[in-house]
Amino acid sequence: MAFGVQTERPPGPERSALGRIVAFLLGPRLANREQKDRKLGALEGVPAMGLDALGSSAYGPEAALTVLIPLGAASLAYIGWIMAPIVALLLILFASYWQTIRAYPNNGGAYIVSRENLGTNASLLAAAALMIDYVLNVAVGISAGVGALVSAVPALHRHILPLCLGILGLVTITNLRGTLDAGRLFALPTYLFVGSFAVILGIGWFEVAASGGHPQPVVPPPKLPPAMEAVSVWLLLRAFASGCTAMTGVEAVSNGMTAFRDPTVKYGHRTLAVIVIVLGVLLVGIAHLAVSYGIGAMDQTKSGYRSVLSQLAGAVVGNGAFYYVAMGSLLCVLALSANTSFVDFPRLCRTVAADAFLPKSFAIAGRRLVYSVGILYLALAAGLLLFVFGGITDRLIPLFAIGAFLTFTLSQTGMVVHWRRARDSRTGAATAGASRTHQWINTIGALTTGAALIVIVIAKFKEGAWITLVVIPAVIVLLKRIHSYYERLASLVQDTRPLQLRDTRPPIVLVVMASWNKVTDKALAMALSLSSDVLAVHLFQLAGPEEEEHDRELRAQWHAFVEQPVRAAGLAPPRLIILRGHRRAIHEPVLKLVRELGTNSGGRRIAVFIPEIVKQRWYEYLLHTSRTRQLHSQLLSCGEPRLMVVDVPWRLDDGEP
Amino acid sequence: MAFGVQTERPPGPERSALGRIVAFLLGPRLANREQKDRKLGALEGVPAMGLDALGSSAYGPEAALTVLIPLGAASLAYIGWIMAPIVALLLILFASYWQTIRAYPNNGGAYIVSRENLGTNASLLAAAALMIDYVLNVAVGISAGVGALVSAVPALHRHILPLCLGILGLVTITNLRGTLDAGRLFALPTYLFVGSFAVILGIGWFEVAASGGHPQPVVPPPKLPPAMEAVSVWLLLRAFASGCTAMTGVEAVSNGMTAFRDPTVKYGHRTLAVIVIVLGVLLVGIAHLAVSYGIGAMDQTKSGYRSVLSQLAGAVVGNGAFYYVAMGSLLCVLALSANTSFVDFPRLCRTVAADAFLPKSFAIAGRRLVYSVGILYLALAAGLLLFVFGGITDRLIPLFAIGAFLTFTLSQTGMVVHWRRARDSRTGAATAGASRTHQWINTIGALTTGAALIVIVIAKFKEGAWITLVVIPAVIVLLKRIHSYYERLASLVQDTRPLQLRDTRPPIVLVVMASWNKVTDKALAMALSLSSDVLAVHLFQLAGPEEEEHDRELRAQWHAFVEQPVRAAGLAPPRLIILRGHRRAIHEPVLKLVRELGTNSGGRRIAVFIPEIVKQRWYEYLLHTSRTRQLHSQLLSCGEPRLMVVDVPWRLDDGEP
Repeated sequence: MAFGVQTERPPGPERSALGRIVAFLLGPRLANREQKDRKLGALEGVPAMGLDALGSSAYGPEAALTVLIPLGAASLAYIGWIMAPIVALLLILFASYWQTIRAYPNNGGAYIVSRENLGTNASLLAAAALMIDYVLNVAVGISAGVGALVSAVPALHRHILPLCLGILGLVTITNLRGTLDAGRLFALPTYLFVGSFAVILGIGWFEVAASGGHPQPVVPPPKLPPAMEAVSVWLLLRAFASGCTAMTGVEAVSNGMTAFRDPTVKYGHRTLAVIVIVLGVLLVGIAHLAVSYGIGAMDQTKSGYRSVLSQLAGAVVGNGAFYYVAMGSLLCVLALSANTSFVDFPRLCRTVAADAFLPKSFAIAGRRLVYSVGILYLALAAGLLLFVFGGITDRLIPLFAIGAFLTFTLSQTGMVVHWRRARDSRTGAATAGASRTHQWINTIGALTTGAALIVIVIAKFKEGAWITLVVIPAVIVLLKRIHSYYERLASLVQDTRPLQLRDTRPPIVLVVMASWNKVTDKALAMALSLSSDVLAVHLFQLAGPEEEEHDRELRAQWHAFVEQPVRAAGLAPPRLIILRGHRRAIHEPVLKLVRELGTNSGGRRIAVFIPEIVKQRWYEYLLHTSRTRQLHSQLLSCGEPRLMVVDVPWRLDDGEP
Repeated sequence: MAFGVQTERPPGPERSALGRIVAFLLGPRLANREQKDRKLGALEGVPAMGLDALGSSAYGPEAALTVLIPLGAASLAYIGWIMAPIVALLLILFASYWQTIRAYPNNGGAYIVSRENLGTNASLLAAAALMIDYVLNVAVGISAGVGALVSAVPALHRHILPLCLGILGLVTITNLRGTLDAGRLFALPTYLFVGSFAVILGIGWFEVAASGGHPQPVVPPPKLPPAMEAVSVWLLLRAFASGCTAMTGVEAVSNGMTAFRDPTVKYGHRTLAVIVIVLGVLLVGIAHLAVSYGIGAMDQTKSGYRSVLSQLAGAVVGNGAFYYVAMGSLLCVLALSANTSFVDFPRLCRTVAADAFLPKSFAIAGRRLVYSVGILYLALAAGLLLFVFGGITDRLIPLFAIGAFLTFTLSQTGMVVHWRRARDSRTGAATAGASRTHQWINTIGALTTGAALIVIVIAKFKEGAWITLVVIPAVIVLLKRIHSYYERLASLVQDTRPLQLRDTRPPIVLVVMASWNKVTDKALAMALSLSSDVLAVHLFQLAGPEEEEHDRELRAQWHAFVEQPVRAAGLAPPRLIILRGHRRAIHEPVLKLVRELGTNSGGRRIAVFIPEIVKQRWYEYLLHTSRTRQLHSQLLSCGEPRLMVVDVPWRLDDGEP
């Protein structure tokens, strides 16, 4: 016998129907050593992590303009005032996260940065905010994508919710296949989107310039309604708060650093740069063209709704083939912007679970080396949100952005502490100077995102932001309770003493039996190989008072088939005990017997043998009672400290000739 | 140690929340010996089994009149022609079942009678027909009850389905408590119904007689519409076929004989007599008054619908308090007519399961000594039907009555054979004469119900009766396949040889371990008490490639905590094997090791020890991985013939000081 080296066994073919479906959808199970081949470069990184940020370009300006609808045509006069600080904030975040990625090349998420620099409570705040934010991002992204589709094909207006859930399913399955698969599959729509909107913005810009600021739209956008109310600071603040959703997704790269291949900093930086530059150009371009062409937001809940980008594309290039290519790629990008959450949420949960603040299953790499439990949980939570809100984006927007800006602020603040510590611990003046610059950048980032956070909370409090403020503490309490469970568990199982060997006597063995058959035969032979104290327990009236007892027949069989051969083999014959199942529960008399043995047997261990017919087909679960399983679980939880439960499997093919 | 006598342990308090809810709803678990106190007399027998038949008085005439709607006012001229043969049939059935009950005092259902006299195939046909009939009876009864309610309170018209499902839930829970509980609880509405309709029919009859056949209605029924088509034999046959639903439920007493207390024949006869007499009086009275007051059926799918009995009660006594008492009791009786199925269906399934044509779980008396699995299955199937048909009775009626009349015919035919055999086996001339009379009664019963069956099948074929004719053979095939599974199982486990004791060596023991802790400690000590060949298997990288291995630490602990004390105790120290979980599936390396051991160990048995932390709260299932359970089930089904799987439970309180 040599077990030193374990060579790898190729995965066998799936036997069950469900197993085959899963294998078809998700691909073969990957081995641990295949992980390095599953990492991303920048080419896959942009589609995998950048779709949230790129998609934000569609719903950020739209969300701001939606708040401004009451101003009618006057709304366009103010959109510049709202987009300018948003783009400025974006640049500050770019600089900040550039530094964070370099400082934390393996995992620079807000959770880690907060944990390392601000302590456990801040890290849990970041984790809770991020988790909620990721769930919201999935719901908002997909419903915005479907909004864009409905905008192009109004006949689909009645099917918003099924479309949302269908896309959610697609993204979920793709991510269960792996982040790399998602990055590759989603590369085409991503780059198609970037390319086609580059063309539209370019043409639009040229037309505006050529026409002296008054371009002729190919398809004129609907006329903006007259103003319903006058402008107010409050309205502009609310528009700014809504527009800030355009920035969510910028933190994605720092949170997903473990997905990149080495050197992670290089690929992280490249990915971040592509994302921020494209997003910045899109935001500026959209705001500019919306003003020039006179495009405002429309009410999404009404039929005939068209999104801002749909109107804009129509105005610039008309409703021809190119329009459909552009809107198609936009739909994909928006719908797939959920993908960013699917990349980052499971990785975040994995880190949090590794710190024992989430169930351990979140930390287990699944079939395809991604954290499947996190992916499934995210899909479930987002699906529930979509269902509750009926798949309409702007009902979700008020809930959004708070989480993102909270984590921005925490992450920046953590980095400020990081640089101060770095400066304190190092001596070189040059390094100190660099750290000081870094610290300043992150300080500005923390202050501006913190200020934006306050604006967002105040501006959107009544519309639903308060929900986030209730849910975040609830999540933190939950995380802490999970942690204290694991801490208690660890302290209870911790063993600082050597193995206790007070009792090496073989156990008393109970064999639970139904009648004399091959299953009992096998279990009894096994029991006799363990101990000379074997008791066979037969129960009757388990099915009810009408059940007849074959008492005499069984005792005769017992004598001829068991006692005689056992004596002939020179062993003590097992004793047959026949018990009545007064209340038809198999475990009651067995547990009673176990307790009596526990008290009267002088501390001997007890092994209960449960012979069990192995179910090999689904319908066999319906055709057999679940009694042995009930007995099994009742025995496990009965609290008798010296008990072991022995399952003796018996397959139907065992009995075939 | 003395285990000869098992005294009864009172059921302990339920620990889980679910267990407490179940205990509250269903009452305490009953012991087998309490069964005799749970049997019925005639007083409880009528509400328990008679509600189907009594309720039929409401929907039978209504169903016949519904078919006649196209005749308009002319329909009333024909209702007598339809009800007369129905009442005649009822009397024939009464005489037949009176005999059946006496001949089969313990279980006179169509299944048993067919099995004893006509063979297995006929009995399965009866079983399939009865099962389908019982499911339909629940759906038809409840939806008719809700129809009556909606008739009285039209505002509830939009809530038909929830009302149906709510009543289904109530009847299900009451029957899970026990047939006696149902009989007692439903006695009040039953006798209230009988009493109040006796009063209504009495007053109506008097009014008709006093007014010379032209009574003045208190609340005039809606005018009958003009005729839309002329009368035809086909229409009358269809009306007869629909009206025959009034007779379903007459067989209930014979099918439920096991529910009665001794002497069962006496209580069965009394119950049957009360049911048939009341039903007959109601049918004749309703038909008579409908004609006299000019009351026809209305379209049930339309708002403003009122049932025939509602119109009749309104016409005779007005819409005052008494009307509401009568309609309230009618609603209860109709809704609760489902109860007959809940009494008989589980008992039928129990008998069929005892013959191994249904899963064994149908034959197990549950918590309250009723066959809970049958009750739950019936509730599920009827709930599904109600859901699919939206809770509207007359869509279900075409599916109904075929099953009932098929079982009538089978049961009567079986009794004909029974009497002929009885005559052949006995010698006394008097007995032969009595048997001949009995045989004649059952022959007439068989012929008339058989003829009615043919009429029903032809008349309702297109409207849905064909569904029943497709479903019945499908059910029979299913029953036969279940039976052949059990036959194969029995032949495979049958053991005609004495116990095989070729190998009495102790097994090789594998202990699956995570790290050195109290759980491992306990399992290892147990393993060492069984065998001197113990291998401890530690797996790492089960969570994924990032998992770090504490290889060295574990080996050091192993040496100090395990090897030294074991050697000191004079035993062979267990060997530590550290394996990598290449694909993160705990069972792969363990199964591989088991297979290698199976091949290389010279036929030794193998025991795999799985130390397991016992989950005592629901949330612990979320906080622990399901790995040990997966390993457990994979080991059981792996097919290694000499394997046993040993669970070593460890409760968190075990570790507390």
